[in-house]
Amino acid sequence: MEKAIILLSGGLDSATCLAIAQAEQFECYALSFDYGQRHECELQAARKIAATSEVAEHIVIKIDLRLWGGSALTDDIAVPEAGSSTGIPATYVPARNLIFLSFATGWAETLNARDIFIGVNSVDYSGYPDCRPQFINAFSECARVATTAADEGWEFNIHSPLQQLNKAEIIRAGLNLGVDYSLTHSCYNPDESGLACGKCDSCALRHQGFLDAGVADPTKYS
Amino acid sequence: MEKAIILLSGGLDSATCLAIAQAEQFECYALSFDYGQRHECELQAARKIAATSEVAEHIVIKIDLRLWGGSALTDDIAVPEAGSSTGIPATYVPARNLIFLSFATGWAETLNARDIFIGVNSVDYSGYPDCRPQFINAFSECARVATTAADEGWEFNIHSPLQQLNKAEIIRAGLNLGVDYSLTHSCYNPDESGLACGKCDSCALRHQGFLDAGVADPTKYS
Repeated sequence: MEKAIILLSGGLDSATCLAIAQAEQFECYALSFDYGQRHECELQAARKIAATSEVAEHIVIKIDLRLWGGSALTDDIAVPEAGSSTGIPATYVPARNLIFLSFATGWAETLNARDIFIGVNSVDYSGYPDCRPQFINAFSECARVATTAADEGWEFNIHSPLQQLNKAEIIRAGLNLGVDYSLTHSCYNPDESGLACGKCDSCALRHQGFLDAGVADPTKYS
Repeated sequence: MEKAIILLSGGLDSATCLAIAQAEQFECYALSFDYGQRHECELQAARKIAATSEVAEHIVIKIDLRLWGGSALTDDIAVPEAGSSTGIPATYVPARNLIFLSFATGWAETLNARDIFIGVNSVDYSGYPDCRPQFINAFSECARVATTAADEGWEFNIHSPLQQLNKAEIIRAGLNLGVDYSLTHSCYNPDESGLACGKCDSCALRHQGFLDAGVADPTKYS
């Protein structure tokens, strides 16, 4: 089996992405980040998903993006309600996926793995620049020349299998692969017990996805 | 004054790079990484350099690259003596500069800075792929499409002013700008008190640089 790194936030998309990688027969190494996110309860979700998915290894890296903040997820900035703003929303975390993929590249190179999975999506998404195919393509080339890949004549495959799916299609794909979405967490602004707010962009996209897919939403709202 | 992020390891090259950025009238924000490096005493050097250089801010981020190791600097692998190996040496840390520049991009975007300085050099260097101009160019494009830069029509300037200089030229440039190289640390394998080994690749390149520049080597060897 070929090894692959899977970025696993604990959300709906990354859980689906992991299931797809496993269905494609990769031996999966899951990577999560404790980055000072407001919704750190997503890490409990990531641990549950990793434990029930029989990944080869799950690493949670601690990095403190609150050192500079600049986002509603890492700073004292209110999480906006869905549809309340235009353009790139306040929940955008500067360079987050760039940082995450960079760590994934380091682990992949160490494991001699050439495949990295990331659950980015540019259909039902919040408009973050680091979720678009242009970024994934540029990162792939950057990782090649940053590492021994360039010297040895190979390249990293950055898989983003959800890129062009809408949320309902993602949910249907995941259900077909046996993903238990009750284990996943999407809300940016949960209450202290981890219940979803039902108002933020991430909750709205998730709930509409379940509606459109015609399946019950297993999310527990506050 | 325009703001710039300076990657500051505490070594000879990054100290020179900081001095160049300041000479170019940037307001400098220094960024160092406590990544589990064998030679963590370089961080004491970075703090001294930042303190004596009047940077606007100095952040040391803790990230644990020992979680996967894979390098003589982050794992139980011996540091090779200079000239003892061919190809990419065991001191190469997978994706290190990719990770470092990704964090720098995040901080830059938060500060509304467009300039990042990194002291990479591909003349007198250890052969690491992430020190070459191909990587710096690819990273620049990647950072643009990873962030709000692409939406707003600007790009990051990744400065690598030492790229084509030999070590003696770097030292002469630094001395002209008042860099105190006695504050810097380069050795990959220092003893417990932080004294340089005098045998590793980094020590060899540094010592030869002082010889070629015709100035006294201020390094304290064990």
